[in-house]
Amino acid sequence: MKVIKFGGSSLASANQLEKVLNIVKSDPDRRFVVVSAPGKRSADDTKVTDALIKYYRDYVAGNDVTKRQDWIINRYAAMVEELGLRPAILEKISKSIKKLATLPIEENDFLYDTFLAAGENNNAKLIAAYFSQNGVEARYVHPREAGIVVTSEPGNARILPSSYDKIEELADGDEVLVIPGFFGVTKDDQICTFSRGGSDVTGSIIAAGVKADLYENFTDVNGIFAAHPGVIHKPHSIPELTYREMRELAYAGFSVLHDEALIPAYRGKIPLVIKNTNNPDHPGTKIILKHTTHAFPVVGIAADSGFVSINMSKYLMNREVGFGRKLLEVLEELNISWEHMPTGIDDLSIVLRQRELTPIKEQEILRQLTQKLEVDTADIEHDLSIIMIVGENMKSHVGVTATAAKALSDNNINIQMLSQGSSEVSIMFVIKSEQEKEALKALYAAFFEKKEN
Amino acid sequence: MKVIKFGGSSLASANQLEKVLNIVKSDPDRRFVVVSAPGKRSADDTKVTDALIKYYRDYVAGNDVTKRQDWIINRYAAMVEELGLRPAILEKISKSIKKLATLPIEENDFLYDTFLAAGENNNAKLIAAYFSQNGVEARYVHPREAGIVVTSEPGNARILPSSYDKIEELADGDEVLVIPGFFGVTKDDQICTFSRGGSDVTGSIIAAGVKADLYENFTDVNGIFAAHPGVIHKPHSIPELTYREMRELAYAGFSVLHDEALIPAYRGKIPLVIKNTNNPDHPGTKIILKHTTHAFPVVGIAADSGFVSINMSKYLMNREVGFGRKLLEVLEELNISWEHMPTGIDDLSIVLRQRELTPIKEQEILRQLTQKLEVDTADIEHDLSIIMIVGENMKSHVGVTATAAKALSDNNINIQMLSQGSSEVSIMFVIKSEQEKEALKALYAAFFEKKEN
Repeated sequence: MKVIKFGGSSLASANQLEKVLNIVKSDPDRRFVVVSAPGKRSADDTKVTDALIKYYRDYVAGNDVTKRQDWIINRYAAMVEELGLRPAILEKISKSIKKLATLPIEENDFLYDTFLAAGENNNAKLIAAYFSQNGVEARYVHPREAGIVVTSEPGNARILPSSYDKIEELADGDEVLVIPGFFGVTKDDQICTFSRGGSDVTGSIIAAGVKADLYENFTDVNGIFAAHPGVIHKPHSIPELTYREMRELAYAGFSVLHDEALIPAYRGKIPLVIKNTNNPDHPGTKIILKHTTHAFPVVGIAADSGFVSINMSKYLMNREVGFGRKLLEVLEELNISWEHMPTGIDDLSIVLRQRELTPIKEQEILRQLTQKLEVDTADIEHDLSIIMIVGENMKSHVGVTATAAKALSDNNINIQMLSQGSSEVSIMFVIKSEQEKEALKALYAAFFEKKEN
Repeated sequence: MKVIKFGGSSLASANQLEKVLNIVKSDPDRRFVVVSAPGKRSADDTKVTDALIKYYRDYVAGNDVTKRQDWIINRYAAMVEELGLRPAILEKISKSIKKLATLPIEENDFLYDTFLAAGENNNAKLIAAYFSQNGVEARYVHPREAGIVVTSEPGNARILPSSYDKIEELADGDEVLVIPGFFGVTKDDQICTFSRGGSDVTGSIIAAGVKADLYENFTDVNGIFAAHPGVIHKPHSIPELTYREMRELAYAGFSVLHDEALIPAYRGKIPLVIKNTNNPDHPGTKIILKHTTHAFPVVGIAADSGFVSINMSKYLMNREVGFGRKLLEVLEELNISWEHMPTGIDDLSIVLRQRELTPIKEQEILRQLTQKLEVDTADIEHDLSIIMIVGENMKSHVGVTATAAKALSDNNINIQMLSQGSSEVSIMFVIKSEQEKEALKALYAAFFEKKEN
C-alpha cells in the first residue's frame, strides 16, 4: 500500500495530469493520492493558491470579486475541457469557489484558511473525476471524511494524535482515494491549514495513518541532489538518504521537502521516496530510517551562509563551574537562538545565524561577556558559512575527516571551526563565506567525482 | 631583573646547592630567589615537608616529638656541615623547628600551615647564609617582610591584590633576596599556605610584584616535552610555549607547573622559563604571552584518558529553543561538571570526566534525558581519551587538521569526535582509550619526526 503525493507543478495542466494518471495506474498499490492546488503552467503563470489569496483580499475589502472568481473557475475549466471531463464536475467546483464569497467575514478566524484550502480541495474533486473517467476506480475524500482532525490554530494546524485511528480505516476498501492536501478540519468543523510543508504534511499523515509501505512524493526533480546544482555542474541525485541525513542537509540549505512535514512519516517509520512526475522511471531519492547499503559514506554536501561566531577566551574558563550555562542564559535573555558551541579549554565560541543579531545586540553581548562573565577577550566574526558533509555511514569509514580536511587545505581554504559529533551523521566545517563555493566544489570533487572515474 | 625559583630536588643536598649558587652567581639579574623545602636526596629519602607533617601529627596527638624534631634538624645540619656554614645558622633553624612544638593547638586554624611552611622558611635562611658566605650579597626575607599578604584560608591562601604595592618595593636595592615559597601571612600575621602549585605561586607573585623581566623556574627536567616521554621515545623539549598553549597541554595531562600557579605571572605579563638545575645551559622551555617565531605550528601533543561521552539525538532538536540550557541544568542539578558539548543538528554530546559519574548518576541522566528532555535516543560511552594538538600558530597553517586526521586514519584510529575551536590554540580529538598510545605515536611522528629528518 502506497501513499502518493503530487505537488502543484505535477498538477498544473492536462498534460501533467495525464502523467499523474499513468503513474497511479502503473501500480495498483498506489491507493492514496494526495494532491496540491494547480501550480504554474509557465514561469509567468499564477498559482491557483495565489489567485485565491487575491480573491480573499478583495472579498474582505468589500470589492467586487467576480473577476477573481472567474479567473479561478476558468483555470479549472481549462483542465476539465482539455481532459474531456463531464461538465458536472466543473459545476461542483464553480459552486464551491463562489460559495467562499458568502462566508461570514466577522469573527471568522478560519476564513483565510478556508479560501486557501479551496485550491487543493477542488483540484482533488477534479482529479478524482478524471481518474474515474479513465479506468481508475477513484473517489474524492474530504479531510473531514478522512479523519484529519487538527488543532484550532489558523495557518498553523497540527494533527491531533487521536486522528490516526480514523485515518487507519481508510485502508479498508479497494478504491483509489484522492485527498486534498494542505488542510484538515478542527473539532468544530472549521477548515484549518498546515503551516510549512503544506500538502507534504497531509501525505505524511495519511502514510503514517494507513501504515503505508511507502510514501511517494512526486515533484519536478529527480530526487535530491548531492550538492547544490547552482554551484556544482550536474550533481548526481542521492539514491538513498536517512531521515537524519535529510535533516542535516535541510539545515544547511537543502529544501526539497520541509523537514517538519516529515515528522508523521518519520515517527510512523514509513519510508519515503522523492520522485519526478516528468521522469517516473528514475528511481529518485529514497528516505528511510536505516541505510540498506554501505556503499556511500557521504550522501551529500550542503552549504549555507549567514552565520556568525561569538568567540571568547578566559584564563581558567574550563575550571569555572556554570560558565556555559551562564553564557546561554545571557543569550536567552537577549532572545537569541544559537546553533553550535565549540569549546577549547579556555576558549569557547557560539555559532549562530546572523539574523539573530543586531548591532545593538552585538554590543550588549560583548558588554555582558566582559562585565558579567569577565572574559579576557571577546569578538564577533561575521560572514561565515557552514558546510555540512552528511552521511550516516561515515562512522564506519575512517578517513572521511582526513579526506575533507585535505581537500580544503589543498585548495587553501582555512577551516575556522570544525565539529564532528559523536553521532557522525555529519561533519561540520565553518569557513569564511567568500570561500563557500570554492569549498563546496573541492569537497564535491573529493567525495563524488573521484568515484565516478 | 629576574625572579628565580628552585624546586625541592634542586635544593636537596650540598651538591645541588652548589649548582644553585653557580646559577645565581652567573647572572647578576637574578635578584630574587624563591626556594622550596629540601626534597629527596634519593628515591627512598623523605622530603622535609613530609617529615614536618609527621612532626605535626605527633604534636597534636600529644606524642613525644623529640625524634621528629631531631630528624628534621639533622637534615639541615647535614647540609650546614657539607657546605661549611657557620654554626649560628643551624642554631636559628633548630630553634625555629623546636618552637613549633610550643604553639597553641586549640583554636589554631593555622597550626598545620605553620608546621608545613617551616620547611621552606628554614631552607631560605640556610640558602641565604650559604650565598652570603660564598660571595653573593644575599639576605633572607620572610614573606611578611616581602609583603605577601594573603586571605585567611588555611591550605588555600590567595594573594590579596593590595600586596603587590609592597612587593614592588623589593625591587629597590642590590642584594639577592632569598624568599621561602609556599606561604604568605594573613592580615592577623598568621602563616597561611597556598594550595596547589606551592612555591611556584610565590615565584609567580614576586615576579608579578617586582615586574620582573623573567621568571625562571628551575626543576630537574630540560623544560616541557612535546609529548609524554612514557609513550614517545626521547621527545624533544618545547623551546617556546604561550600561556594559552601551556593551559591546553596541562588540561590533557601535562603537569610540569600547576597552571593556577601561573596566574599572577600571566596577569602581570611576565615571561617564564622552565629550566634544569642539573643542566643550566639547556635553554629550557620559555612560556610567554605571544610567540616570537612562526616556526612551529604545533608545539605539543597531550593525551589524557578517563573521559566519557553522553550522546543524545532528537528529531528537530535544533529547533528547540533552550534545549542546551535545559540539558546543562540537568547536569548542574546532579552536580556534574562537563567539559565539551559538540553539537550536530539533531545530535548533541556532552564530554566529561569519568570521575564525575557514578552508575546511579548515569541512570539518572538517561532517565531525565528520556523523560524531561524527551530525546529519541541516548547512550553513554565509556573509556574515551582526549588528544590535544596544541599550537597557537596552527591558525596560520592551513592543513594541520588534514595532517592530523590523515595520521590517525592511516593508523586505523577512528575519531569519535573532533573539535577545532575558533581560537585554534588546539584541536581536540576524542578516541577510544585503547588506541590512545597508538594515536599519540602517530601524531608525534606526523608533526615532529618528519621535521627532524
